[in-house]
Amino acid sequence: MFKVSVLYPAADGARFDHAYYAGTHMPLSGRLLQPLYYEIDQGLAGGAPGAPAPFVGGCHFYFANLEGFQAAFGAHGAELQADIPAFTDIAPEIQISSVVARAGTGSAPHWASGI
Amino acid sequence: MFKVSVLYPAADGARFDHAYYAGTHMPLSGRLLQPLYYEIDQGLAGGAPGAPAPFVGGCHFYFANLEGFQAAFGAHGAELQADIPAFTDIAPEIQISSVVARAGTGSAPHWASGI
Repeated sequence: MFKVSVLYPAADGARFDHAYYAGTHMPLSGRLLQPLYYEIDQGLAGGAPGAPAPFVGGCHFYFANLEGFQAAFGAHGAELQADIPAFTDIAPEIQISSVVARAGTGSAPHWASGI
Repeated sequence: MFKVSVLYPAADGARFDHAYYAGTHMPLSGRLLQPLYYEIDQGLAGGAPGAPAPFVGGCHFYFANLEGFQAAFGAHGAELQADIPAFTDIAPEIQISSVVARAGTGSAPHWASGI
C-alpha cells in the first residue's frame, strides 16, 4: 500500500482553517482522487515537553498503487491546488511513502488491512 | 484517536537501516508502547517530479488517548531511544496529532474504525 502525505509546516502567523480543511477541502480531495481512504490530522504538539507541533495539520491518502494516485492527481491536481488558498497560506510538504508494515494490539478494524 | 508520528528527515550521507527498523526496532516499540496499532513508512519520493522524499522513513503510533502514550513512553522511552543508533544517525522529528477524520472509498477494514 502507498501513502501520499500532505503536511503543512507550522509557521508563525500562518493561517490554517481546520474546519474548512476537514469539512470541504478533504471531502473534495477524496471524491476527486478516490484513495482507498484518507486520514486528516490536526497537529497538537511536538515530542519534547512544551514543544509545538512541527506541522499544523495535514492528510494522508492511502492507495493500492501509485499509478492510481498519479492518474487522479494528473486529472484533478490543479483543481485541488486552486482550493488551498481557501484554507491556508502555507505551502505543503508532500511525502510519498510505501507502507511497509502495520501491526497492532487493538481490535482488528483498527489495523488489519491488506498492505 | 491520537497519532504519534516519528519522522526521520532525509539528509545527504545519512544512514537508515529499513530492515532493522521494521524488523526489530518497531516490534520492540509496539511491545513497549502498546498502541492500538502502528504503521511503518519507507519514503519513496516527494511531490514534484523527481523530488526526493522529505523523510527517509518513519512510523505512526495510534492511541485511543494521549495519557496511554505518555505513560508508556515515560516508562520505556529511554530504552527505545537507546536503540535508535542501531539503525540510523538521523535525529527524528516528532509530531503528535489528533486524527480528526478518516473516510474512504475502499473496503471498510481499510479505514472504518472508531476515532
